[in-house]
Amino acid sequence: MTAKLIDGKARAARLRGDVRGAVSALKAGHGVTPGLAVVLVGEDPASQVYVANKVRQTEECGMRSIEHRLPADTPEAELLDLVARLNADPEVDGILVQMPLPSQIDTDKVVLAIDPAKDVDGLHPTNAGRIVLGRPGLVPCTPKGCVMLASEAHGGDLSGLDAVVLGRSILVGKPVALLLQNANCTVTMAHSRTRDIAELCRRADILVAAVGRPQMVRGDWVKPGATVIDVGINRVPAPERGEGKTRLVGDVAFDEAVKVAGAITPVPGGVGPMTIACLLANTVQAACARRGLPAPAL
Amino acid sequence: MTAKLIDGKARAARLRGDVRGAVSALKAGHGVTPGLAVVLVGEDPASQVYVANKVRQTEECGMRSIEHRLPADTPEAELLDLVARLNADPEVDGILVQMPLPSQIDTDKVVLAIDPAKDVDGLHPTNAGRIVLGRPGLVPCTPKGCVMLASEAHGGDLSGLDAVVLGRSILVGKPVALLLQNANCTVTMAHSRTRDIAELCRRADILVAAVGRPQMVRGDWVKPGATVIDVGINRVPAPERGEGKTRLVGDVAFDEAVKVAGAITPVPGGVGPMTIACLLANTVQAACARRGLPAPAL
Repeated sequence: MTAKLIDGKARAARLRGDVRGAVSALKAGHGVTPGLAVVLVGEDPASQVYVANKVRQTEECGMRSIEHRLPADTPEAELLDLVARLNADPEVDGILVQMPLPSQIDTDKVVLAIDPAKDVDGLHPTNAGRIVLGRPGLVPCTPKGCVMLASEAHGGDLSGLDAVVLGRSILVGKPVALLLQNANCTVTMAHSRTRDIAELCRRADILVAAVGRPQMVRGDWVKPGATVIDVGINRVPAPERGEGKTRLVGDVAFDEAVKVAGAITPVPGGVGPMTIACLLANTVQAACARRGLPAPAL
Repeated sequence: MTAKLIDGKARAARLRGDVRGAVSALKAGHGVTPGLAVVLVGEDPASQVYVANKVRQTEECGMRSIEHRLPADTPEAELLDLVARLNADPEVDGILVQMPLPSQIDTDKVVLAIDPAKDVDGLHPTNAGRIVLGRPGLVPCTPKGCVMLASEAHGGDLSGLDAVVLGRSILVGKPVALLLQNANCTVTMAHSRTRDIAELCRRADILVAAVGRPQMVRGDWVKPGATVIDVGINRVPAPERGEGKTRLVGDVAFDEAVKVAGAITPVPGGVGPMTIACLLANTVQAACARRGLPAPAL
């Protein structure tokens, strides 16, 4: 038996289509074109690629993209000043400050400076708190994508399922756990101090791996028929492809797990593509919420 | 075998002693007397008793108590105005608006109006988010008390223990789960949709019941030697005490569980007394944080 592959690329494309539709409706019905401001400090190559993708996809969905590129030696005060101007700018619905930031800048301070209503990355404590309190708010993009993919694999209803989330990072593990709980799963949050982690994982109907350790989750950690969501993106040596070559693997030993799981996300092509699509969805949601318009169904 | 009783009254008295010490040190070292403002709207008898206890204990710890009693028909705008004045008042370190509020007042609006730095009840989304993000903040009082009692039963170290939290209310269940996770437990959040809940509970080294259902947790739900924290306070008929008499019971069938557990909180006298003591601790913490003074060890 082989697990069904959960196609994150296809799901993300569908979500982008829905975002495009919502943007058209906003323009036609209310004369509103949502705007996403992206701030990039420095020249980190990975960040540049990521920002370029965000800008392109934002525009493809019919939204305005506002780019701010600052030199690597930008003082913290200058970045905070820019954030304050973006907070005040009525044309800006979402603000994304690309991480990582150069060392002279306190990332925490920057995150706290962003207006929670424009915090489309869902990083501000107020938005994290809204997840806990079950209030409407902006949900971090990768966790939102994970739950969408899990939900899709279960026909939209996760109620009563046992979920285990491996990893408790504030960017992924914790929000995923809270979102799955809001979807009525029974959630266990596991981490490096967890005992009998393989045994715990074997009880999961939904297993989310977000630990950043290549292929840590083995095939025999997976309950037969379970849904496996692999958030890890790890680059490992691939000598079979030639000397010095590498390849991307997840936190799950895919070749083993695919034989046991019911459904599984590949790496790449699983959770990864969902992140930017969820960012676009958050931007439309922020644009509506800021204007008191009903939330689009995204 | 009979479980050790976890004495919440004694632990709360010790915490109040620590608060008193911290207040003395603040007065002597910095000339600061922390102030707690309590706002009571209407004449609810239970709330009046509770507020009277808070006021008395605040003063016994050497802090200033500021009481505001408003009539039951107070308009929402008037309460929000009072909250704004308390937010702005430098003499006020903590603000507690006693719940429940009369129906003409939107509780959510009031909670959101309180300055998170003075939100000693820990109800504001910003403080809920800080728990998720592991940032310092004001932690809701009953959850804080639960974790203190569990920690005490385990010599201060909960790391690696399996915890099951029954109930996912925003006031108790969710924050308890997050706090236990921050203490390095492997936490499962269970609720009404959870399957095989008895079986799940039997895996818990620490079992926290916060569901508001009298004696729902039976003795055979408890793992031998486990620590049981019972948050429930339910009034049930007690015909054995005479016609029309009642008594208080928890969410745990105490008489059964006490034979299996390693340690258990009684009801009353377990979690209950911790709540106000934690409120006092939060007030001192808020007083220090607002002035940039180091957090007292409470």
